[in-house]
Amino acid sequence: MESWVDGQPADVLSLKDRGLAYGDGLFETIAVRNGRPLLLERHLQRLETGCQRLALRVDMTVVSAELSAYARCQGDGVMKLIVTRGDSRRGYAADPSATARRILQGSAPVAYPAAHAEQGVFLFPCSVRLSEQPLLAGLKHLNRLEQVLARAEWTDSRYADGLMQDASGRVIEGVFSNLFLVRDGVLSTADLSRCGVAGVMRAELLFQANSQGIATQIMDISLEQLHQADEVFVCNSVYGVWPVLGCGSARWSAGPLTRKLQTLARALLDA
Amino acid sequence: MESWVDGQPADVLSLKDRGLAYGDGLFETIAVRNGRPLLLERHLQRLETGCQRLALRVDMTVVSAELSAYARCQGDGVMKLIVTRGDSRRGYAADPSATARRILQGSAPVAYPAAHAEQGVFLFPCSVRLSEQPLLAGLKHLNRLEQVLARAEWTDSRYADGLMQDASGRVIEGVFSNLFLVRDGVLSTADLSRCGVAGVMRAELLFQANSQGIATQIMDISLEQLHQADEVFVCNSVYGVWPVLGCGSARWSAGPLTRKLQTLARALLDA
Repeated sequence: MESWVDGQPADVLSLKDRGLAYGDGLFETIAVRNGRPLLLERHLQRLETGCQRLALRVDMTVVSAELSAYARCQGDGVMKLIVTRGDSRRGYAADPSATARRILQGSAPVAYPAAHAEQGVFLFPCSVRLSEQPLLAGLKHLNRLEQVLARAEWTDSRYADGLMQDASGRVIEGVFSNLFLVRDGVLSTADLSRCGVAGVMRAELLFQANSQGIATQIMDISLEQLHQADEVFVCNSVYGVWPVLGCGSARWSAGPLTRKLQTLARALLDA
Repeated sequence: MESWVDGQPADVLSLKDRGLAYGDGLFETIAVRNGRPLLLERHLQRLETGCQRLALRVDMTVVSAELSAYARCQGDGVMKLIVTRGDSRRGYAADPSATARRILQGSAPVAYPAAHAEQGVFLFPCSVRLSEQPLLAGLKHLNRLEQVLARAEWTDSRYADGLMQDASGRVIEGVFSNLFLVRDGVLSTADLSRCGVAGVMRAELLFQANSQGIATQIMDISLEQLHQADEVFVCNSVYGVWPVLGCGSARWSAGPLTRKLQTLARALLDA
């Protein structure tokens, strides 16, 4: 699938783009099925929040229409939208009247091993810690060196993702997933007000769980609380839900609430 | 001056570049005078340190030769080298055998007001705090959203730069400068082991001061210590040294040690 820049076919970008110079932008990775972008409203919501916090001028109506048009051309797969502050002038100062640049790239459906969803996965315990920056926390921005360094910590394919903690040792998320735990029937996930990416599937699962009367809480999670959990799973908007079987010395088994939410996620992604 | 990508004239970049996707790379901004890159060895040293810490494969001999060749073509101005991990495959995992991509861009000499160096400057007291990430501290990497947000805090041209503190309130640096203070004849600058960019001019001034028997220290600097300083100045490898006259309610005057180091910096940049 060809890429688009500001709605036009293109496979290259200006060297002056501030996305390259400073990571000055945001992205969304969106599953596409039968010509439709999945969880589109939630992706647009997060993007809009990010644009507001970074003062990026984006016409959300144009973005929405473009994502739908691209998905129709793509059919099935994953599309990645990058929004940057456009070309640089000199230095960090931006032109406040500049409108953001939209970059759309498509790729084939991701072929994860079926066992990840069916049996569950192991997480590599990453030593790279997430730094705390409340101004950027929750956003899917382009400053992702911490994830690059964390992902480079393991090559063993037995690990489907890595577990990331913040500088204070709190359990935050996977390298490319959000993490949930279940204890005594309560579904918990990390508070992302200091660091982390507020995933679209995380938001959807919290919403669905609340709708079904499942107790949820957003909280600080210690390593001890993680170890004592009855169930642990990771999620994102491309693969849905994977039960977590272990991380470091801790072991869990795929439990009923994980399976229930996995089924819900699959229904959304098979739509 | 045309740009080069991997030594060849180019003004565009692959959309798959990891510099765009993740800010997965480093940069150097180098003053060029009479066809020569200034402080070249220090720029190369910092770049090499950064490449080692990010596990970026770069042939430093090639980089050095290319910077010299570009400077010869450019004559006078500023050149910016960006080194990225090249094209992305899928996700954060990188190909460990991939060699880095080199992007060189040139611009005209920067016309800062002469008064900045002659009289001194005021710093805007930024509210954006630098997050603490020891793995990235000191590097001039491409994850610069904090600087973008900080620079957006002021538009009043009376402020030549902004003062940045870390999350704990320590005084770290300017948005695009390093900061020094003088107290009782001792020259001090911030410890950059948790955050900040270890500037080439900062390193050179520390070296020159030590060579001349001026006492130096690298330390944690509180706002109170900054306020009580006898002299304050900012520096970088393009403009040299600017005395700082004020920040917030604090006022200083351009003192003798600042003027001495400014003269040294000017000699290096007028070389």
